[in-house]
Amino acid sequence: MNRIPFADVQQTLAAVLRQLGFAPDRAQTCARLFAETTCDGVYTHGINRFSRFVGTIGNGCVDPGGEAEATARLGALERWDGHRGPGNLNALAAMERAIALGREYGVGCVTMGNTNHWMRAGTYGWQAAEAGMIGICWTNTMPNLPPWGGAERAVGNNPLVIAVPRSRGPVVLDMAMSQFSYGTLESYKKRGELLPVDGGFDAEGNLTRDPAAIEKSWRPLPIGYWKGSGLAVVLDMVAAMMALGRATHEIAPDPLREAGVSQMFLTLNPAVFGPPSRAEAIADAVVASLHNSRPAAQGGKVRYPGEQTLRIREENLRLGLPVEHAVWAEILAYQQ
Amino acid sequence: MNRIPFADVQQTLAAVLRQLGFAPDRAQTCARLFAETTCDGVYTHGINRFSRFVGTIGNGCVDPGGEAEATARLGALERWDGHRGPGNLNALAAMERAIALGREYGVGCVTMGNTNHWMRAGTYGWQAAEAGMIGICWTNTMPNLPPWGGAERAVGNNPLVIAVPRSRGPVVLDMAMSQFSYGTLESYKKRGELLPVDGGFDAEGNLTRDPAAIEKSWRPLPIGYWKGSGLAVVLDMVAAMMALGRATHEIAPDPLREAGVSQMFLTLNPAVFGPPSRAEAIADAVVASLHNSRPAAQGGKVRYPGEQTLRIREENLRLGLPVEHAVWAEILAYQQ
Repeated sequence: MNRIPFADVQQTLAAVLRQLGFAPDRAQTCARLFAETTCDGVYTHGINRFSRFVGTIGNGCVDPGGEAEATARLGALERWDGHRGPGNLNALAAMERAIALGREYGVGCVTMGNTNHWMRAGTYGWQAAEAGMIGICWTNTMPNLPPWGGAERAVGNNPLVIAVPRSRGPVVLDMAMSQFSYGTLESYKKRGELLPVDGGFDAEGNLTRDPAAIEKSWRPLPIGYWKGSGLAVVLDMVAAMMALGRATHEIAPDPLREAGVSQMFLTLNPAVFGPPSRAEAIADAVVASLHNSRPAAQGGKVRYPGEQTLRIREENLRLGLPVEHAVWAEILAYQQ
Repeated sequence: MNRIPFADVQQTLAAVLRQLGFAPDRAQTCARLFAETTCDGVYTHGINRFSRFVGTIGNGCVDPGGEAEATARLGALERWDGHRGPGNLNALAAMERAIALGREYGVGCVTMGNTNHWMRAGTYGWQAAEAGMIGICWTNTMPNLPPWGGAERAVGNNPLVIAVPRSRGPVVLDMAMSQFSYGTLESYKKRGELLPVDGGFDAEGNLTRDPAAIEKSWRPLPIGYWKGSGLAVVLDMVAAMMALGRATHEIAPDPLREAGVSQMFLTLNPAVFGPPSRAEAIADAVVASLHNSRPAAQGGKVRYPGEQTLRIREENLRLGLPVEHAVWAEILAYQQ
């Protein structure tokens, strides 16, 4: 495992992106988002995902020059076209606009079709929270999850993010509708570990904690069985309907060809009916109630979503971003 | 089991409510919502819940004359005070207003504090969908679920509803953050059945399918373990922060004293960027993709959330609402 300074990672990735046709500022921002994702400890969607991202540029799924733009508006709602641009840059721009709409109208919404994988979902929740707004966003994905009662992949794992601003550390829920993301399955498999709870079915249709068996059967379990399956269905519907974009069943079931997804960016302004400190005190009291509640295991602690992020971020900024040798060698090899 | 015509149920409940101090029109509407809930097959939150509702009027938690009203507004966002009125009437009024805001601004939001248990969460999703709008709403509840890693009830099961309008039958997801609601646990226990999957911990801390053991330990399982726990936390935070109302930890942990909850009502207008038929065609195609996907069990079928409702509604309207003898006798005894 290498430890590479954040700035070096960003510059290296940005150099690769410039070679691939990104404008300089867009290369910097896109590289920063990848580096921040690893920095925040979401290793499955940061540097480790970069080579796949390069692959989707190479095969034409992602257009480095494609820039998201608003195509229609009514009141606090805008529809955007992602023009098949880089998913993380598109999502950043869409959430930025949703934040502005939420400031003006109390609630704001940007709906975007024809965009691409946004990498780490939580990025856009942190973005909203750091701007003092509650952010709610989700994306649909290729079919990668069997619906409850189904044997084959027909719904997406459609990550959902809900983020709450808080000066002592935003609360950011970032969850896919599968019990474990494919990235997480891959991490457990690489480490040779079993999952902590059942994560899907094996080829014989039995529940299993073996990540390799689940990758093989393509039958990961939705969270809460029928409940997460149903939530995945409605998130897909709402995103596709509002964006007039593609639904999961229209998206190629191949991580390298997954293109043209639909996304939702909602914001709520918690400082409309009182000073921001009043809403924040409510969030702080909820956090305190969790921290004060009795843990199930001796010495354990109940945590809020995203509680570990600031600590991991600080550590990775201080020590350098952890990058596997092979992954880094592959990225360096892109440089001419 | 009795089968009682819908109109008779409504009139009987309305008569009881009038005795309890409801104005005639509010008694009719409140009674209708209870009857509709049973009619739609949500037996845990319909007629079977009426006696408990009467109890919360008797002990002063619910004020029959309390009427929800808007207290502040910015753009597409309104803050309402529920004035401790009947939760279902309050929620109906709040969603009605959110629908109007969504029509005007594309997206609309009503946030309501100081209200009471809204009974069946899905009611307000159906309301939005039948008005042609996408409806998203949730409520916080008393602490009734241990957070992941916790031994005692510290988060609510905070039901979340996402509803999609569709002329061939709305798609309505209505899910609590616990794998099984207490109402469902009670139903299984009454029928002497085990749950289909693990629903919580027994007193020794082992996962179990026994509903009675879970009711005893007060440790039902959140959907998706840590994921549903995290979702419950952020739903509570957002509702309380936006309403400047109570969070779960401030709500009495007693079904008869659970009062002053916070709720969110969001709407999205799917007919802004094209005719309603265009968004509806997208929803229909998602439904078709589910129906055409291969079932896990021979002869099985993949269903969308709420798919059974219209069939059950038709049957119960035709045959009469199914009401247990003891439940009905208790309700008749309220009449002087």
